[in-house]
Amino acid sequence: MKFLRIGDLGAERPAVLDGDGTALDLSGITADIDAAFLSGGGIDRARAALEAGELAPLDPAVPGGGRVGAPIAAPGKIIGIGLNYADHAAETGASAPAEPIVFLKTPDCLNGPDDDVLIPRGSAKTDYEVELAVVIGRTARYLDGEADADAVIAGYALANDVSERAFQIERGGQWDKGKSCETFCPLGPLLVTPDEVGDPQDLGLRLSVNGEVRQNGSTKDMIFTVRHIVHYLSQFMVLRPGDVIVTGTPAGVAMAKEATPYLKPGDTVELEIDGLGRQRQHMVQA
Amino acid sequence: MKFLRIGDLGAERPAVLDGDGTALDLSGITADIDAAFLSGGGIDRARAALEAGELAPLDPAVPGGGRVGAPIAAPGKIIGIGLNYADHAAETGASAPAEPIVFLKTPDCLNGPDDDVLIPRGSAKTDYEVELAVVIGRTARYLDGEADADAVIAGYALANDVSERAFQIERGGQWDKGKSCETFCPLGPLLVTPDEVGDPQDLGLRLSVNGEVRQNGSTKDMIFTVRHIVHYLSQFMVLRPGDVIVTGTPAGVAMAKEATPYLKPGDTVELEIDGLGRQRQHMVQA
Repeated sequence: MKFLRIGDLGAERPAVLDGDGTALDLSGITADIDAAFLSGGGIDRARAALEAGELAPLDPAVPGGGRVGAPIAAPGKIIGIGLNYADHAAETGASAPAEPIVFLKTPDCLNGPDDDVLIPRGSAKTDYEVELAVVIGRTARYLDGEADADAVIAGYALANDVSERAFQIERGGQWDKGKSCETFCPLGPLLVTPDEVGDPQDLGLRLSVNGEVRQNGSTKDMIFTVRHIVHYLSQFMVLRPGDVIVTGTPAGVAMAKEATPYLKPGDTVELEIDGLGRQRQHMVQA
Repeated sequence: MKFLRIGDLGAERPAVLDGDGTALDLSGITADIDAAFLSGGGIDRARAALEAGELAPLDPAVPGGGRVGAPIAAPGKIIGIGLNYADHAAETGASAPAEPIVFLKTPDCLNGPDDDVLIPRGSAKTDYEVELAVVIGRTARYLDGEADADAVIAGYALANDVSERAFQIERGGQWDKGKSCETFCPLGPLLVTPDEVGDPQDLGLRLSVNGEVRQNGSTKDMIFTVRHIVHYLSQFMVLRPGDVIVTGTPAGVAMAKEATPYLKPGDTVELEIDGLGRQRQHMVQA
């Protein structure tokens, strides 16, 4: 299934796409696509209602009906995995990591897939990163092995792990400083359940700036697979329903090439992952 | 005023201490001490009710009435400042940072002040850090200067920024991996408003393990003051009501001295900051 949230920021309505791509209203099933929905059997309830033909199309007159929000409301945490594609690690001059590099983005930098992205004040190095996002569906502590990861994954989404490189790298110590600026985590449009995604390690992912292709890779080239990452993270922190993991980006970021400019106000970034939909963001000065 | 939350985990009742140290029930004023309370004028309402003598003592029969929770419910983020005391930076072999080092702890590692702390599986280097925590009361973006920080600070609390040093430093890349294990942020018992704290840069803070003093410092020795930190952070991320900032620790952590053992199951950690109360935690194997 493909879940999404439509409406004004903070007042999105939960919806699911039918086979024709029509958004059906899930308001009768759940107040939102959130931790309670995922952990409380919401996906099964939605599937049953969908199959029984009980869901009506979402009223297009819903306030903000032209806007798609992030497909998960209020994640408790957003976890990032660094340098998880060999070509990206190489382009940044880093060697491939021996185990996953873990950083965090604050949950409140979550953004809708087509919302404006704010270039922070004082920023000269705002950069993009197309990434496969994993949304957790069940609490996970100390998973025994990678095979246990599947049971705690609710689905997948497209993410732009927007990053300010000077803040991240040149301003003292830890990456988080450049990873959590306002609007720095566009997510969605869709939360797609694993049965519809197929092999998460065989998805093309692409990103362009002002129509020029900058990133064009495949999740095949991840150093650490989704299963590995989920198992690994569960050894260090509790994964909870609604948590989001952004799993790293392939080569092509602006940081890596002198000739590639960083993002500036007025730029348009477009990105997509096979089966997970497309994002389009305008860059705006904060 | 001194706010606290009393009761079973997840079902704490909001309370405020009167002049005698009796916990008065705030349930008639607010459902909880949280972002909505802080941003919605809750502190003023509580003060008025307290001064008018309208608050009754909290019923000691409330479920879990012997337990004090973290004094703020569901913070949106927990931000850490690294190496913010010169003596601590020196003991770790680091030079004093030129600007604040920023890392994150996941919000769900918040813990009550006297709750058990879990030693993670596979951990050999679980360490303690007594810290002054700042709780944000109003949204802050791009504050103009340090003088603007006071208006967005709701109050202060005592925190133990529990850290697994091998996870933090020896396992690849970023500190967050050793900062967000379950139960790794005991906070409280009290959220104390600035008028009762006095000068936040003149507070003694102490920590002992099994009765032996390990840390004994003063917030006087912070490299970056609370005001500086709040102003600084607002340039990189939005600070929101309920957000918590742990502002660094003085010398004395286990990491710094070969002769000082790391924490192990059965240990008892006690810590305090002048005017903010005391914590006492038992270490338990996860």
